[in-house]
Amino acid sequence: MEKYSGVSSETHALIKRLEKVWDWMAQEGIALVMLEDSESKRDQNIRWLTGHPNDALLFLSVDRKALLAAWDINLAKIYACKSPVTIVSYNDFDRTPIKALTAAAKTMRIPPGSKIEIPSVTPYPAFLKFVGELTDYDIICREKSAASEISKMRAVKDDEEIAVIKKAAGFTNEIIDLLEKNVKSGKIKTEIDAAMFIQIEARKRGCEGTSFETLAAGPERSYAIHAFPSSTCASFGTQGLSILDFGLKYNGYCTDVTLTFTCGLNPKQEKLVSLVEKASKLTVPMSHNGTQARDIAAAADTFFKKNKKEMPHGLGHGLGLQEHEYPLIRNKSDNDWVLEPGMIFTIEPGLYDPILGGCRLENDILITQDGYEVLTSARIINL
Amino acid sequence: MEKYSGVSSETHALIKRLEKVWDWMAQEGIALVMLEDSESKRDQNIRWLTGHPNDALLFLSVDRKALLAAWDINLAKIYACKSPVTIVSYNDFDRTPIKALTAAAKTMRIPPGSKIEIPSVTPYPAFLKFVGELTDYDIICREKSAASEISKMRAVKDDEEIAVIKKAAGFTNEIIDLLEKNVKSGKIKTEIDAAMFIQIEARKRGCEGTSFETLAAGPERSYAIHAFPSSTCASFGTQGLSILDFGLKYNGYCTDVTLTFTCGLNPKQEKLVSLVEKASKLTVPMSHNGTQARDIAAAADTFFKKNKKEMPHGLGHGLGLQEHEYPLIRNKSDNDWVLEPGMIFTIEPGLYDPILGGCRLENDILITQDGYEVLTSARIINL
Repeated sequence: MEKYSGVSSETHALIKRLEKVWDWMAQEGIALVMLEDSESKRDQNIRWLTGHPNDALLFLSVDRKALLAAWDINLAKIYACKSPVTIVSYNDFDRTPIKALTAAAKTMRIPPGSKIEIPSVTPYPAFLKFVGELTDYDIICREKSAASEISKMRAVKDDEEIAVIKKAAGFTNEIIDLLEKNVKSGKIKTEIDAAMFIQIEARKRGCEGTSFETLAAGPERSYAIHAFPSSTCASFGTQGLSILDFGLKYNGYCTDVTLTFTCGLNPKQEKLVSLVEKASKLTVPMSHNGTQARDIAAAADTFFKKNKKEMPHGLGHGLGLQEHEYPLIRNKSDNDWVLEPGMIFTIEPGLYDPILGGCRLENDILITQDGYEVLTSARIINL
Repeated sequence: MEKYSGVSSETHALIKRLEKVWDWMAQEGIALVMLEDSESKRDQNIRWLTGHPNDALLFLSVDRKALLAAWDINLAKIYACKSPVTIVSYNDFDRTPIKALTAAAKTMRIPPGSKIEIPSVTPYPAFLKFVGELTDYDIICREKSAASEISKMRAVKDDEEIAVIKKAAGFTNEIIDLLEKNVKSGKIKTEIDAAMFIQIEARKRGCEGTSFETLAAGPERSYAIHAFPSSTCASFGTQGLSILDFGLKYNGYCTDVTLTFTCGLNPKQEKLVSLVEKASKLTVPMSHNGTQARDIAAAADTFFKKNKKEMPHGLGHGLGLQEHEYPLIRNKSDNDWVLEPGMIFTIEPGLYDPILGGCRLENDILITQDGYEVLTSARIINL
């Protein structure tokens, strides 16, 4: 691969990403794009494009300039230091998107009459305000936006990203083995023991943390798809079904796995577990370049239906800077994702019963040129 | 207070809240309101109105009916059991808001031509779809929405809520004392030690967890407003300034405090700490019934400006089911919140310097009939 002269490989990767977006803007005739990451509207596209993790606006102009208005300018100077982006303080615009956009349009010399795209998640009432304030421009807000295009670009990981996720998966697998050992030895006795063990082991390995709050549900609570609260002082790994759903976040990239621990099951519980394991064995090998993601999810739904069960959630989802991203592995008619090499996603069949408890088995799959690779080693663990 | 006959006090409190919303709907001439809580758009109004914590749509009709479409129906049956709401499975509508709304309008017999309000955070492109599909109705999406009205109602806590938050604050204060002891004794040596200690102590006390990921930043990282990552294996409480920002979540309600630990400071660092402490002492006593929240925040900004410093964030925010809610304690011209008895909010002056490090001091304040009560005991701790 051709490298930019005098530029680090990280900078090169970031520039390559920005160029894809600038090319898309030129095609679409958009002069300026605003991306926003804030507490109420997270957008990891900014991290993907600049390295800066959160709380910022990113302005991209079609003449190939980039301006980052960061809430925490000290943090931005460190995290976005490999990016060609210009960094300014979001506080200079009262932390108000309309003010920042108005200033960016001026600084970046966007000609009046040009198209400016604001995020597709902009609420309808806020959209009206943008239109009312930036009267010199044609304000665009649509589903097929820069943010959605970038999110789609992110579905196929480049070599650098795959290397990071493989490292995160390696850590995840080490922790899975330790969890098995410590639940079996009785060192981990409660849900919170399991959740805290993961947090500590993750950070010992240099992870940013977990990719979401670990869901540790002992037999009394595993009936819930996503246990609430996420973990308590209740027993874990005692008689019945215990679910442990966790992921690591390493250099921004997420893993996501679910183990089920079983102990002294009755025949109905054994049947539940067996069906989930079979659904996993049925669907994981369907993961190939060119496969319709919908078909994999449909296979799981059909299998459960045949066995008079119903899975109350989708079969899987992409993984990357977010724990839930493209491609969707869902049995919905509008899901037209087709698997490609470089895509990384979960496959996570699960069944839940208010009396028997729940069982889920979730692993992370990488699509390769000639098949797939299961990156993680989540499993049903019999105690 | 008059009680409904044969109804528990919890049910009574939930009905009272629903009635406020139904009254508002009648005034506004709205036949049906949809509220949504999903991964990408959290809305704790649903929990406030029904007890159900997350991942659901709530439909309220002006003829005083309520329908909860919950993703996890098993969880809803437990958490919303005190509510008069009818519970259905969101899966019956393919987990698609438009399908669920269409079905709710039919089930709840909303007459054609009526006004139906969808969340004010509905993205502009999604708004167009609702309008395109529900052609029999007048679809309303505006800033002054049911959700924003309910969020405003929530700014003043009732006696039950104050009791819960006081209990959470008591736990928070116990943990603050333990943190001081354990950092001083050397039992807590790293950021992750501090963060994990809080998690474990929170859940031991029956909390749902922390109200957000604990931000533990040792001297190398305290320059950031919100340290990123939230905690690492770096030293904590060693020479310089260490920030610890955390909150507990108890029965749904949040606390939020920040301690700064100091050790062997140079004169510039001492000055920074002294200014933050002074700003706290200046502004907390301004918390009275009838005070403009903006004026308190302006007093802090003016004080820092006089001392040639600038605080890069707002002075505080309301606390309740969310860690950030109304009232806003910000120095912005459009902030017209006036303090009232029952309001609970943070006051959290802070200063950050890339070389010196950062200092923030955050406590939770309750407005009473004749003044204020500082519920938490966060402080500057000299090691």
